[in-house]
Amino acid sequence: MTVRRVDWMALDEAEREAVLQRPTMALDATVRVAAARVIDQVRADGDAALRALTRRYDQVEIDAIQVAPDAFLAARQAVSDALYEALVAARDRIATYHRAGMAEGFDIETAPGVRCGRVIRPIGRVGLYVPAGSAPLPSTALMLGVPAMLAGCRDVVLCSPPRPDGGVDPAVLVAAQLCGIEKVFRVGGAQAIAAMAYGTGTVPRCDKLFGPGNAYVTAAKQAVAQDAGGAAIDMPAGPSEVLVIADSGADPEFVAADLLSQAEHGPDSQVLLLSDSVEILDAVTIELERQLATLPRAELAVQALSSSRLVRVRDLDQAFDISNRYAPEHLILALREPEGWLDRVQAAGSVFLGDFAPEALGDYNSGTNHVLPTGGAARAYSGVSVSSFQTTISVQSVSREGLRAIGPGAAEMARAERLVAHERAVTRRLARGDA
Amino acid sequence: MTVRRVDWMALDEAEREAVLQRPTMALDATVRVAAARVIDQVRADGDAALRALTRRYDQVEIDAIQVAPDAFLAARQAVSDALYEALVAARDRIATYHRAGMAEGFDIETAPGVRCGRVIRPIGRVGLYVPAGSAPLPSTALMLGVPAMLAGCRDVVLCSPPRPDGGVDPAVLVAAQLCGIEKVFRVGGAQAIAAMAYGTGTVPRCDKLFGPGNAYVTAAKQAVAQDAGGAAIDMPAGPSEVLVIADSGADPEFVAADLLSQAEHGPDSQVLLLSDSVEILDAVTIELERQLATLPRAELAVQALSSSRLVRVRDLDQAFDISNRYAPEHLILALREPEGWLDRVQAAGSVFLGDFAPEALGDYNSGTNHVLPTGGAARAYSGVSVSSFQTTISVQSVSREGLRAIGPGAAEMARAERLVAHERAVTRRLARGDA
Repeated sequence: MTVRRVDWMALDEAEREAVLQRPTMALDATVRVAAARVIDQVRADGDAALRALTRRYDQVEIDAIQVAPDAFLAARQAVSDALYEALVAARDRIATYHRAGMAEGFDIETAPGVRCGRVIRPIGRVGLYVPAGSAPLPSTALMLGVPAMLAGCRDVVLCSPPRPDGGVDPAVLVAAQLCGIEKVFRVGGAQAIAAMAYGTGTVPRCDKLFGPGNAYVTAAKQAVAQDAGGAAIDMPAGPSEVLVIADSGADPEFVAADLLSQAEHGPDSQVLLLSDSVEILDAVTIELERQLATLPRAELAVQALSSSRLVRVRDLDQAFDISNRYAPEHLILALREPEGWLDRVQAAGSVFLGDFAPEALGDYNSGTNHVLPTGGAARAYSGVSVSSFQTTISVQSVSREGLRAIGPGAAEMARAERLVAHERAVTRRLARGDA
Repeated sequence: MTVRRVDWMALDEAEREAVLQRPTMALDATVRVAAARVIDQVRADGDAALRALTRRYDQVEIDAIQVAPDAFLAARQAVSDALYEALVAARDRIATYHRAGMAEGFDIETAPGVRCGRVIRPIGRVGLYVPAGSAPLPSTALMLGVPAMLAGCRDVVLCSPPRPDGGVDPAVLVAAQLCGIEKVFRVGGAQAIAAMAYGTGTVPRCDKLFGPGNAYVTAAKQAVAQDAGGAAIDMPAGPSEVLVIADSGADPEFVAADLLSQAEHGPDSQVLLLSDSVEILDAVTIELERQLATLPRAELAVQALSSSRLVRVRDLDQAFDISNRYAPEHLILALREPEGWLDRVQAAGSVFLGDFAPEALGDYNSGTNHVLPTGGAARAYSGVSVSSFQTTISVQSVSREGLRAIGPGAAEMARAERLVAHERAVTRRLARGDA
């Protein structure tokens, strides 16, 4: 196993760009065409297409597409008490954090007689996608289900691929039920996205779709988001990634463990370590080899580590410049005074402060959301929150007095824009003797 | 001129669907291909492409692409004092409203020793597009510039098409300057979007693009938003639209004026009037004809009105059901007790309450934003606000005590997801005698 070591100071601009280049997600034309074909098939044939595509891609025959109510009961029994309690505690902590961040309406007077405000509404029907490729992800069901519940969405739909026995993973079902979700469908891949975006006989059509997925899922989400008759989506999705900034006092065992926990997500995950300490870089390299030796998913991690970098930087200030340029999904600050550095973070999905905050806590149960912008999208996108499941509507209420206060200004601007009907909608009201 | 009158109760489901069908925006394959070609050209040839495309599409030779500092001074002199004062007052009112809606960070304890919070950051560099097709839109410069300024974006770039004399409209320049924007470029269309998304020698590359535009601009925005190396965009854009709900006490002159002020935006604008009063529908029909007779942009409005509908409904409750299904960009409640009906609004961009709140006030200077979701996107999208120019970053700080509190639960969930390296990132820390 070799992780590439580089010295940032010794690189020219092109080499620096190359170091920060992400492994491309396999979203080539083939994937887009395949996803588009699946979407067309689902739109044309509905539930029959879902059954046929599940047969082809999951090698499973599904008769009833929706998970029956008694399956939730069976799922609870199939899940250990320890896992159940962990899921309940995680849900509660995620709810506490997400509730604290909820937006509120307001109502102010912007001029005498002009009241402007904002009301917040849940998105009517939302679709959650919970992947189960290399492993089922009950944590993702919580990360999407809790904010949907807090937002008050009228209808919450969840799709997850069936296991070989035709059922949805019991832990995913338990997590769904802990969020009050009753409509779960055993469908995965691009066909699940198509079903939720356009509706089938069984799967209801949703206004917005959420959740991570493989390249086909991502391509399908992009396609339906582009279609005016499709559905909105949470954010562009890509391979997971972490950037660690470590000072000379960091613990190499912990740093290596965090890098590996990101790398095990898949061969296209990326991990970056920035440090001003050669000793730390050396020690982490040794630790990586040592920890890899006993890791069951080592092949995956080795592949991911091949596109990863341990980068020596001049100082921590330079490390933050690089991090802001890269805009990582996860940013771990393995620093002695991490709080003091937080102001330097301009773009990242989620930040982990100190030696005892492994990324895994954010993935599961610290309370923050783990559906986060990847691939540099953190420059302009935020992670999933309750507001992802809501819209805000502006409201203005104008009295006669208010119209007298701001109507003439509006008419002046309308004239400048040569929009005469706009002007007249104002002046006709102003002209009324009683206005 | 004929506006179609329909009786909702007499329609079957397919006919109802047809009534709510929007005039499609001409975003067909030809437009997409043309926009993609423009993007390719700008990426390949940079500023030279901008000059060539401006020559071709705007019939203008531009030498310097960036507007020079002294042009702002000249623009102020070219704008009347009345318009200048209207713009200043509008800016201040927009700022008051948008400041009131700004999100704040927070920081809570989700378990003993586990602090989770959220910090808010401005998006680094944003690009604003201000169209100037049939008329220049200084109001759009304010609607985008004010929230960008309040968000604290480091760099704000504005593109607007050149006039025949090669300059940018003076009112647009004044509006830009009122928002502290110095980087204005005389480029329009898909080429402006491409320049801001990828950068040229002159135009800096932006993280997120905002603003309305024609079909080519919209297609270009969609294309760069799909490209992982492109830029994020504010929302899907489409033709403007209004839905008015009027009761028997509404003023037909005002209602007709509002319908026409929307219709004059362009031939593909759509206006819908819902009322439970036949008398009002009759009176508005007469008013429309009367007001059209003196309207300069009557041809446009007549075209728009041809795809519009005056709909008789059973009662106001049914009107709100239809409105929520349609999810209009603008919703005018020409009702006697409009505040009492606000709770019934589930999906809309901006709502106008009462007889003295014409949509034109929201377009210009009530304080709310006029960049709003169209085409039914209000079901899942919100209008532009300060948060459109910001990202939120989650932060977790975990002490040894915190790790002991939530680490075992995280490890349990990691085991369920078969992510051993995740589990070990937690258990290695727990295993430390000092943890």
